[in-house]
Amino acid sequence: MIKVSVMYPNSPAVRFDHDYYRDKHLPLIKSRMGAALKYYAIDKKLAEGASGVPAAYVAMCHLLCDSVEAYQSSYGPYAQEIRGDISNFTDQTPIVQISEVVVENSAKGEAEALHRHPGLLAKPTGQEDRRQPA
Amino acid sequence: MIKVSVMYPNSPAVRFDHDYYRDKHLPLIKSRMGAALKYYAIDKKLAEGASGVPAAYVAMCHLLCDSVEAYQSSYGPYAQEIRGDISNFTDQTPIVQISEVVVENSAKGEAEALHRHPGLLAKPTGQEDRRQPA
Repeated sequence: MIKVSVMYPNSPAVRFDHDYYRDKHLPLIKSRMGAALKYYAIDKKLAEGASGVPAAYVAMCHLLCDSVEAYQSSYGPYAQEIRGDISNFTDQTPIVQISEVVVENSAKGEAEALHRHPGLLAKPTGQEDRRQPA
Repeated sequence: MIKVSVMYPNSPAVRFDHDYYRDKHLPLIKSRMGAALKYYAIDKKLAEGASGVPAAYVAMCHLLCDSVEAYQSSYGPYAQEIRGDISNFTDQTPIVQISEVVVENSAKGEAEALHRHPGLLAKPTGQEDRRQPA
């Protein structure tokens, strides 16, 4: 599985309509990509101070597909239309990265991973919540 | 829910041991944070050319927690130990961003989102896979 991460750089005077992004832009992408888009996720920077860490990105979305080919063939034909929608919610130009998903969800894949790599986890499942310094 | 994204900048001569990262570093974080870490995800940049997009980050992980407080109180006591492990797999210094999770998984939350915002999706569920230019 691959993940296309679309990351909008933060700046002090950044314009970004998070409601439009959630309610219009991502549904637009979803409707155009169809079944090739397994699912998407949306992240929104926390207010400065709440996190204690300055945010590099004002918002991000992550598009999950089975392969680069599945992404390109489903997104490509609508790329111009989708990019044309960006000015409706921000003045930023996103950074796009395509990654291989090494672990999609550690909780979901735990039983499977243990089966494949029996020595991967140091502790038996029932003891995971214990926190002991090394 | 919040997401702590740890992003390791890419560079032509970057050193990054993806196996160590998956098999040792993330399990270390998980064992220290305990139940406060709901789950994590790992991304690895695709080889140049495979994606057609230059990778900004050689690898990323995302730590999912219920709140900033849950993250800080579970990660904080082990921050020095965890950071001390970084040199075992890379020479890069990561960028850390804490985000609010607006949509965790669009496929998972779809029924729920439709219930909350009936007008959110333009098409009924059964027609989602149709791709029609606007």
